[in-house]
Amino acid sequence: MMTTTPHKVAVLVAGSWGTALASVLADNSMNVSLWSRNAEQVNEINTRHTNHKYLPDAQLPVNLRATTSMEEAVTGATAVLLVAPSSVIREVAAQAKPYVSEDTLIIHATKGFETDTLKRMSTVIAEELNRNEEDIVVLSGPSHAEEVVNKRPTTVVVACRNEEAAERAQDLFISPYFRVYTNPDATGVEVSGALKNIIALGAGLSDGLKFGDNAKAALITRGLAEIARLGAAMGANPLTFAGLAGVGDLVVTCTSTHSRNWRAGSMLAQGMPVAEVLKTMGMVVEGVRTTQSAHTLAEQYDVEMPITEQLYQVLFKGKSPKLAVEDLMGRGRTHEIEEIARATKENWLR
Amino acid sequence: MMTTTPHKVAVLVAGSWGTALASVLADNSMNVSLWSRNAEQVNEINTRHTNHKYLPDAQLPVNLRATTSMEEAVTGATAVLLVAPSSVIREVAAQAKPYVSEDTLIIHATKGFETDTLKRMSTVIAEELNRNEEDIVVLSGPSHAEEVVNKRPTTVVVACRNEEAAERAQDLFISPYFRVYTNPDATGVEVSGALKNIIALGAGLSDGLKFGDNAKAALITRGLAEIARLGAAMGANPLTFAGLAGVGDLVVTCTSTHSRNWRAGSMLAQGMPVAEVLKTMGMVVEGVRTTQSAHTLAEQYDVEMPITEQLYQVLFKGKSPKLAVEDLMGRGRTHEIEEIARATKENWLR
Repeated sequence: MMTTTPHKVAVLVAGSWGTALASVLADNSMNVSLWSRNAEQVNEINTRHTNHKYLPDAQLPVNLRATTSMEEAVTGATAVLLVAPSSVIREVAAQAKPYVSEDTLIIHATKGFETDTLKRMSTVIAEELNRNEEDIVVLSGPSHAEEVVNKRPTTVVVACRNEEAAERAQDLFISPYFRVYTNPDATGVEVSGALKNIIALGAGLSDGLKFGDNAKAALITRGLAEIARLGAAMGANPLTFAGLAGVGDLVVTCTSTHSRNWRAGSMLAQGMPVAEVLKTMGMVVEGVRTTQSAHTLAEQYDVEMPITEQLYQVLFKGKSPKLAVEDLMGRGRTHEIEEIARATKENWLR
Repeated sequence: MMTTTPHKVAVLVAGSWGTALASVLADNSMNVSLWSRNAEQVNEINTRHTNHKYLPDAQLPVNLRATTSMEEAVTGATAVLLVAPSSVIREVAAQAKPYVSEDTLIIHATKGFETDTLKRMSTVIAEELNRNEEDIVVLSGPSHAEEVVNKRPTTVVVACRNEEAAERAQDLFISPYFRVYTNPDATGVEVSGALKNIIALGAGLSDGLKFGDNAKAALITRGLAEIARLGAAMGANPLTFAGLAGVGDLVVTCTSTHSRNWRAGSMLAQGMPVAEVLKTMGMVVEGVRTTQSAHTLAEQYDVEMPITEQLYQVLFKGKSPKLAVEDLMGRGRTHEIEEIARATKENWLR
């Protein structure tokens, strides 16, 4: 399953997911350079083969090398993998640009939209690297980094309109414990990854109200349907949402009570005001920001997103969570697959 | 949301799901007669308003009446709801037939195929009642009976090719805590409900091998994809599998460690032989029988079902669970949505 020449791959940056993916590549005998601004962290990875802050219990491959030099990391790389947080991805891409050559494969594994512009990550990266957006590969799927670095069986998707680029990414990552599927629908994979946090927040809210497993499963399913509707309007294939980056990632996210989004939802259900929840969490709750983004996108694309709308009312308009759920249950009689089917027909199945 | 004339609805039989659905109807002020062969159980429901054996903690609506007389239950009913186990549904339908009138709406909420014939439940019921199969409504979705009877928010789908029949069923069941969607794809809903137990068994196996959340989420997602492939070959709409009877029911089934199928899978993973697992469980494990049925159907319809195939090898050919997973991970490089998309195009999106 391995390529014959040892490729050089640059991984930017050394968070938990970046380090885990760099480990997969190093296990595949790639020449991996993991870039980080933090000299201490780089030193720890190179000498002790650990990244304690992000992956407390993991022993990293000895052939995984880290560096603080972007020039050293990227120069001569056949592929660059961007996994920086969405808030800094534009800056990291700009910093890498001088060292990226024309035929370097660009892959990213960052979830979310750019906050102000609501652009997808591949759009942002394409702009900064002066590339065609359709050549950028998106890697996503149900994948706790801790499990990947411990070589637990994991399955992901690499999505790109350019089939050859997707297959090149598949070749780099595929291994006995890391199964990689290709999918042409990068837009669907990105929208799915960005919006799943809304549903995780909603799941926490539902669990906090003690609504039970039926309600949570319905929320996951109907939430997925409305995300697919928005995705279809943005040019995605609705079937992508039934795949690894959709259902798969959602199942992992919504059934983990360690998720920050779930915990935030649970606190809201117990009557804590939004401002206080955010203060208590001490950090950004992605789902809160994403709800705002999705609300704006739903208006822009004229898509009905009832769950997002109710969460928006709870988060930003002071509506009670209980009333929000009652309004969701009380909507008109609806047909399950009509809208998705229509979108599928028009945009994808030619 | 309620109909103006009080309908009479017969519910056959008084298991946990039948009793819960009868309660929803009684809460909607229907005239409900719940049929059971067991006189003691009928007496308990009518006098103490409980069904202790099947729903230990539930208080049932006082207007919910039970009877041992099929004639009394079914005569004059505007709708008959069949929720008997799949092994006896043919017999129960035959017994009801003399009292069913021509315009009685027929609904069923039974999961599984008929063992010997591999026929779907609506086919079996249509044969016995001498009805058009396309007029029979299937009710399914993520729904623990205990939660429904306690009025926790629950969302289901009523599926029927005959849209008017689906809407009549929707009218009967819809209530502030019971949200009902229509879907024309009865075949997809039935196949989904019958085959989900395979994946629950696989999830137990994966958890038993301590493979982690990534592997389980991948199994759920890819399992859903192969069930959708078989469903499409059998005439279903693949999008149904992304809905409440697909993803929704699967999430509820696979994340509950109380499920018999999950427990059976977990025991297999720990090295217990199949015969001993079945003996230990002391009762039928649906997923074992369903794996055999799906294996046969996959051959009949010439559909690739790699997860089903590996489970079949483990259950009936003595293959080690660990080797089965390794073979699943090591398959050729695959494209995520190609096959489902093709099936969708050909059969449904005209």
